[in-house]
Amino acid sequence: MRLVSFFRPDGTPACGVVVPGGVADLTARLGIPSIRALMAAGRLAEARAITTPDLPLEGLRLAPVIPDPDKIICVGLNYRDHVAETGRTVTEKPALFARFAGSQVGHGQAMIRPRVSERFDYEGELAVIIGTGGRHIAAADALRHVGGYACYNEGSVRDWQLHTSQFLAGKTFAGTGAFGPWMVTSDEIPDPAALTLETRVNGQVVQHTTTDLMITPVPQLIEYISTVLPLLPGDVIVSGTPGGVGAKRNPPLWLKPGDVTEVEISGIGVLRNPVEAEA
Amino acid sequence: MRLVSFFRPDGTPACGVVVPGGVADLTARLGIPSIRALMAAGRLAEARAITTPDLPLEGLRLAPVIPDPDKIICVGLNYRDHVAETGRTVTEKPALFARFAGSQVGHGQAMIRPRVSERFDYEGELAVIIGTGGRHIAAADALRHVGGYACYNEGSVRDWQLHTSQFLAGKTFAGTGAFGPWMVTSDEIPDPAALTLETRVNGQVVQHTTTDLMITPVPQLIEYISTVLPLLPGDVIVSGTPGGVGAKRNPPLWLKPGDVTEVEISGIGVLRNPVEAEA
Repeated sequence: MRLVSFFRPDGTPACGVVVPGGVADLTARLGIPSIRALMAAGRLAEARAITTPDLPLEGLRLAPVIPDPDKIICVGLNYRDHVAETGRTVTEKPALFARFAGSQVGHGQAMIRPRVSERFDYEGELAVIIGTGGRHIAAADALRHVGGYACYNEGSVRDWQLHTSQFLAGKTFAGTGAFGPWMVTSDEIPDPAALTLETRVNGQVVQHTTTDLMITPVPQLIEYISTVLPLLPGDVIVSGTPGGVGAKRNPPLWLKPGDVTEVEISGIGVLRNPVEAEA
Repeated sequence: MRLVSFFRPDGTPACGVVVPGGVADLTARLGIPSIRALMAAGRLAEARAITTPDLPLEGLRLAPVIPDPDKIICVGLNYRDHVAETGRTVTEKPALFARFAGSQVGHGQAMIRPRVSERFDYEGELAVIIGTGGRHIAAADALRHVGGYACYNEGSVRDWQLHTSQFLAGKTFAGTGAFGPWMVTSDEIPDPAALTLETRVNGQVVQHTTTDLMITPVPQLIEYISTVLPLLPGDVIVSGTPGGVGAKRNPPLWLKPGDVTEVEISGIGVLRNPVEAEA
């Protein structure tokens, strides 16, 4: 099942399920405001039972898959080829940092290069969306807590990321994190370590990996993070980017207005975003 | 004016204003759920006009001043004596990291030492609460965007903070961030650089500073952060801790169950929290 967050033609936000011929409006049909609320209420089965569309998918303005997460936790340096290209060393534990919800855009929306930097970079990543909350979740139980998966382009403003030791400033600029196109529920992705991820800029492949190469795999990420604090339905874990980022190319490949980025993950789909300059 | 977030005797959350003889319940009187919503609606003046209490302040169970911020942005290494004790170097820009709302507790509630660590440390800090949102706020205009100030004990789990280069994991354990006792509105604190901050553990002074010693002062923090993304009413900037943290004492001074921590800031008051072990 593919769940989407979108804006109706009148501009109001809603969530829906992709069905033959279009999208069924779950907000209208079930009175539920968001995918996060749908999962928190344990009502995924009701969405699955719907088979007729209310709106065409084509032309629908999509929002970030989870527009309103309680938290977005990103994992840095989680593929060996990316660790190597940054000149850092592999750590035993995952390097966590945050993004804020206001930094996100949906599929098809512009990723925004800020006024203050020309060092705007892509990072294709697998987003893990919590369906069932919990604390102290054992790795062996962790995948049962996943509601679904999506593509994430964890757009990074490299000079601001490196102003200090802490990445946050360069990782949460408004409009830099693309999240979509939809959430594929976890019943369709039994093993998040068996996926292929590819990032393209203007059609050229710039990152390519299989997700079995994560240093800390998804179940262990959930165990580690849920030791710190409870995970809630709708929480997003952005699981790290492989090698090939623009900053480490020679010459560097910075995103500029007019570029088109794509993150494709097998079994999920393609997240596509144009790049625009901040107004 | 002092604004509080609290739980009514029946357990429902509310916000209120401290008046002679107790607290007036703004949620009941104005139909407003939170201090964040009160500021977003521009209704501080209505709170100020109320002078009669609904509840005694004594015995009231307080919540974190802002229980539901869109974002909590912490500043690391913002006093020279703390930078020196950590062995790091001063950076030109502020080191930002996040906490999540679920890591917070109110005045009088227990700060929780997690099961997985005995390296639980205090950090007394000035919390800056945004009243009027904005992006690209110039430092010269920044204090007009502040709704008020509070005390923050930015409790840190040091071994987890140092698992990797990124501080987040050690900075957002459930129940480790104390925020209170109330928000003093900015009309009463015209200059956040003219305050005295003191942290005490079991009555012993462990940190003492004046806020003019911040490396990046409050107006410049607001300018820097609002360059990254819009600040919203209720957003919290936790502005950094001075020297004297427990980790850098010889021997180290770790918080343990039964301890009582206090953060006192002139013009605001005393935030007091016992320490308990995670259940």
